[in-house]
Amino acid sequence: MTLQQPDPASNPGLEYFRSLIGQSFKDKSRSPFGRWLAGTLLAVEHGRLEIEFTVRPEMLNPAKTFHGGVIAGIMDDAIGATIFALGKKNFFTSVNLVVDYFAPAKEGDRVIAKTAIIKEGAKIINAQCEIWHAEKNRLLSRGTTNLMKIDVEV
Amino acid sequence: MTLQQPDPASNPGLEYFRSLIGQSFKDKSRSPFGRWLAGTLLAVEHGRLEIEFTVRPEMLNPAKTFHGGVIAGIMDDAIGATIFALGKKNFFTSVNLVVDYFAPAKEGDRVIAKTAIIKEGAKIINAQCEIWHAEKNRLLSRGTTNLMKIDVEV
Amino acid sequence: MTLQQPDPASNPGLEYFRSLIGQSFKDKSRSPFGRWLAGTLLAVEHGRLEIEFTVRPEMLNPAKTFHGGVIAGIMDDAIGATIFALGKKNFFTSVNLVVDYFAPAKEGDRVIAKTAIIKEGAKIINAQCEIWHAEKNRLLSRGTTNLMKIDVEV
Amino acid sequence: MTLQQPDPASNPGLEYFRSLIGQSFKDKSRSPFGRWLAGTLLAVEHGRLEIEFTVRPEMLNPAKTFHGGVIAGIMDDAIGATIFALGKKNFFTSVNLVVDYFAPAKEGDRVIAKTAIIKEGAKIINAQCEIWHAEKNRLLSRGTTNLMKIDVEV
Repeated sequence: MTLQQPDPASNPGLEYFRSLIGQSFKDKSRSPFGRWLAGTLLAVEHGRLEIEFTVRPEMLNPAKTFHGGVIAGIMDDAIGATIFALGKKNFFTSVNLVVDYFAPAKEGDRVIAKTAIIKEGAKIINAQCEIWHAEKNRLLSRGTTNLMKIDVEV
Repeated sequence: MTLQQPDPASNPGLEYFRSLIGQSFKDKSRSPFGRWLAGTLLAVEHGRLEIEFTVRPEMLNPAKTFHGGVIAGIMDDAIGATIFALGKKNFFTSVNLVVDYFAPAKEGDRVIAKTAIIKEGAKIINAQCEIWHAEKNRLLSRGTTNLMKIDVEV
Repeated sequence: MTLQQPDPASNPGLEYFRSLIGQSFKDKSRSPFGRWLAGTLLAVEHGRLEIEFTVRPEMLNPAKTFHGGVIAGIMDDAIGATIFALGKKNFFTSVNLVVDYFAPAKEGDRVIAKTAIIKEGAKIINAQCEIWHAEKNRLLSRGTTNLMKIDVEV
Repeated sequence: MTLQQPDPASNPGLEYFRSLIGQSFKDKSRSPFGRWLAGTLLAVEHGRLEIEFTVRPEMLNPAKTFHGGVIAGIMDDAIGATIFALGKKNFFTSVNLVVDYFAPAKEGDRVIAKTAIIKEGAKIINAQCEIWHAEKNRLLSRGTTNLMKIDVEV
């Protein structure tokens, strides 16, 4: 377990996501692409977040399995939300995203994105997102990203 | 320049994409997510392909710039098409995808994805995709991927 | 925790490493570069391994801190040993290695490499290695790799 | 070709490396691990550098081929030298390193590391290193890295 010690104090970003537990991001996300992904928030705490998605027809690749690009999109969006829920004063921007693909999913499958902050540095935050098949308890994909603090306040 | 020597012989996969030059993938792509991305094919040859996309409102992140996840999605989809146009007997599946982000784009901007095959091994193909701002001639992002041959014939 | 269910049965590869616990790889490793790294094996079990290293003068970069390339070398070597200890019939070769750097170490510091198998597929094994500062209990670096089964038996 | 427009003006860092062309880093590198790698500088210009290495016995893995960790080490060291030769006022530190492995080399083989700056941002520099087999003109490996400017002047 590499998660840093959580800050026990709450913050507006965390409270915002707590108020959305059990709801769909379809109408509520501040991320337009997040609304298209249309996940349902299952859980959130400092540095961790779980969102469930259903694999829709327009999320498939030519082999009719879950598109690797949509998986990458879920990771980037879910990690962005996790960073926002940390309640930092500044915005962070993605430097890179690395995704490993392990197993396919098909139309109608439900998948769960589980994020974690791996290292919270002064300038760089490193975060991870796993994608699990909801019913089979199988790890489908895992990604990591480095985000850099920028000189713009939230 | 690390591109392998191209196979001069054409193949049905390459001919298929050649017939689509100048057209939108919105209605024609065999990739459902590729139809959502709705790029226009600009050029294709053995191991290379160029597709232009317009940044639509639903492709934005909370900061109202081009979503990193959509950029990753474009890369995965464009590289998949490039592999298909190689005319291989077997399907290839993504082992990983690595994306570096350099500069933002905004709603309405046109971006061009340019793919290249870096190494064509017997079991693994390594490919790259650059995303350029169409008007500013600025490199926005670059990604690489390893794809593995699977025991399913095209 | 994404570790696959361990195979409870032992195997010659695992027994070999168990016999080396507490010893230095300086004279014993089958990996010539592993002998140069000269780690001491702290623990081994199915899919996990811990090795301690001392940062020697020749392992530094121009800024006189632990060279990122040596860190990558430790990861690659420690993950290779972890795979060997799985007792697979075939050899596996690295497809890629991804390393994130978080914090520096200096000459004389002791660091511990901790490996884990993230996904054990039929053709691809995905593994991770964390590098911890031994005394400060600080995560210095983390890497992941995909290894592919090759048609050569052990 | 994604190389940024080079700054035609020379600088002390670039002049330093120019003075070393044709010489071995074995005794001259400011990088202690670079001295162990013992490459010979073939060429240097703004944003590019070529170094030749010989695969020594202690650079091998258990399969008696060129150790992937040493390859990663060469990339990190050669890219670091390329950044130094840019003549920046500040130091840059590696955020990450990503390496793709394509083909093996064996003891005694000569390999050439060729670096390139892919994107020179204000805070982040993205750079690449290819490793070529010197005689076979075969691409063995390719890596990319993001380096971040730090608040320490050269």
